[in-house]
Amino acid sequence: MIALDDIRAARQRIAPYIRKTPTLPYAKTRGSDFGGDVTLKLELLQAAGSFKARGAMNRLLTLSKDELARGVVTASGGNHGLAIARSAHVLGVPATIFLPSNAAPDKIAKLRDWGADVHIVGAIWDDANAAALAHSTKTGATYAHPFSDPVVVAGQGTLGLDILDDMPDVDVILVAIGGGGLITGLSTAVKALRPQTRIIGIEPVGSPTLHACLAAGRLVALDRLETRVATMSCRQTDQAIYEATARNVDEIVLITDAEMEQAAKSLWFEFGIAADLSGAAALAALQSGRLPLAGGEKICALVCGAGTDGCLPG
Amino acid sequence: MIALDDIRAARQRIAPYIRKTPTLPYAKTRGSDFGGDVTLKLELLQAAGSFKARGAMNRLLTLSKDELARGVVTASGGNHGLAIARSAHVLGVPATIFLPSNAAPDKIAKLRDWGADVHIVGAIWDDANAAALAHSTKTGATYAHPFSDPVVVAGQGTLGLDILDDMPDVDVILVAIGGGGLITGLSTAVKALRPQTRIIGIEPVGSPTLHACLAAGRLVALDRLETRVATMSCRQTDQAIYEATARNVDEIVLITDAEMEQAAKSLWFEFGIAADLSGAAALAALQSGRLPLAGGEKICALVCGAGTDGCLPG
Repeated sequence: MIALDDIRAARQRIAPYIRKTPTLPYAKTRGSDFGGDVTLKLELLQAAGSFKARGAMNRLLTLSKDELARGVVTASGGNHGLAIARSAHVLGVPATIFLPSNAAPDKIAKLRDWGADVHIVGAIWDDANAAALAHSTKTGATYAHPFSDPVVVAGQGTLGLDILDDMPDVDVILVAIGGGGLITGLSTAVKALRPQTRIIGIEPVGSPTLHACLAAGRLVALDRLETRVATMSCRQTDQAIYEATARNVDEIVLITDAEMEQAAKSLWFEFGIAADLSGAAALAALQSGRLPLAGGEKICALVCGAGTDGCLPG
Repeated sequence: MIALDDIRAARQRIAPYIRKTPTLPYAKTRGSDFGGDVTLKLELLQAAGSFKARGAMNRLLTLSKDELARGVVTASGGNHGLAIARSAHVLGVPATIFLPSNAAPDKIAKLRDWGADVHIVGAIWDDANAAALAHSTKTGATYAHPFSDPVVVAGQGTLGLDILDDMPDVDVILVAIGGGGLITGLSTAVKALRPQTRIIGIEPVGSPTLHACLAAGRLVALDRLETRVATMSCRQTDQAIYEATARNVDEIVLITDAEMEQAAKSLWFEFGIAADLSGAAALAALQSGRLPLAGGEKICALVCGAGTDGCLPG
């Protein structure tokens, strides 16, 4: 789908607009003995609250002036929508974001605060996405897919380069999976530079998008989604993402929504970090005890996005 | 009150129990042009959610075995109480925490989760504190004052050493003031090692505890407190803290509660960071435009504590 050079080019392109997010050792924390040396990569401190800022910015920066001037459109009530809205704001171009009716009110408020034109259409993402595509056709605005786009995937891959800078001797990286864009970009970067690092993907039991593909040995669609974690909910990814995952991802571990909720609460309790449930997924996988670890590894647990769905403030 | 050697000894003592908290450049953020180069020191990621873990741990680690075995007691519904409860939990000794009736329910839940014995007594901190002192007299439990204690102040001072490690050429450090323990310890460390670094304290307009002392040229008590920021509310500090402040602090800037609320919201919006209002005070001072800056300085804005009083989740 993409190669290391695409990711390196993306990194240089987006650098003026993207934060170098910090890491935090998980040691000295209650219940921190996982038999390895765990570091949290706090990518939820990224612009607009998640790694999605990387791919969104790479997408917009590779548009022509004409395309940019016509504005951008996408469908996402989650982190991709926020990232597109913020990238458009930074570049001074209009963004139109379509959301399903179950989108969280605080995310809608944030989208408006970034200056996006927000439309609520339909009950599920597919409805909102159809409206976004129709809007693109009608107005000429450039449609930006959340994951099925090599330019977006190359942008997300820059996070892999950053992690290798932070932890040059990392043994294991734990990555939550939604559509698969992040793990595809990240694993492409990491396997090119440090093939011995194991990439472990995390999916909800109720949305085993790539786990099911790997089990079947081909791209498959799920019959149903049974998770409340919207950012990790995906019926079907695309062929290129499936193929890259089959090549680069060492294992996919399934965890329950309750395990993610528990991990998000513990991040909130221990660090005052409001991770969304996908942001807590890597820690949840560690806490579940189901990870295939030998003991003693240097582990990077990616906290990929911010949100209040996992914490109980007030 | 204390000297650099006390702080260095504290640092060595507490190191096994304290996190090295990360920093984050504020650049690339909306409204980030303050004419200087601002770095956030994310001390809200410290154990138990604030810098108070440092002083509390130093206090407990300097008790005798007998004193520790009798347990510890304090009065605080805020970050000091959490830090004492967490330190006691780590060392396996009992902690009793007295709180006034206006303590936040989430803080009470956190205190209980650390295993503390929690008592709600009276309407204000002074009432709860009297009960804590009586409990100490009756049971022999060691009373730990939030700030008027050289051992606690030395512990907080370790944050100054950490900031100099993070930013060896820092020009200005912005520090929120409650009772004055943090700014006393921090400024003692920083002025000993890098006297040209300016230390600017931040107080609420409605609780100018040290600002009033510096104006009067002596220790004074405030007639009234008019701020909703509990962690920055203090009628009177002690003589030693006043004297250290007069010697080491370059300036104290007063800001409004509304400015802190606005800054906390912007930290939440931009970073998904749930800082409490005192944690947002340094950024509020920058945003207020009232800081005496020449332009071009390297500025450390300390985000000293976590909490939900400043963000509006959900």
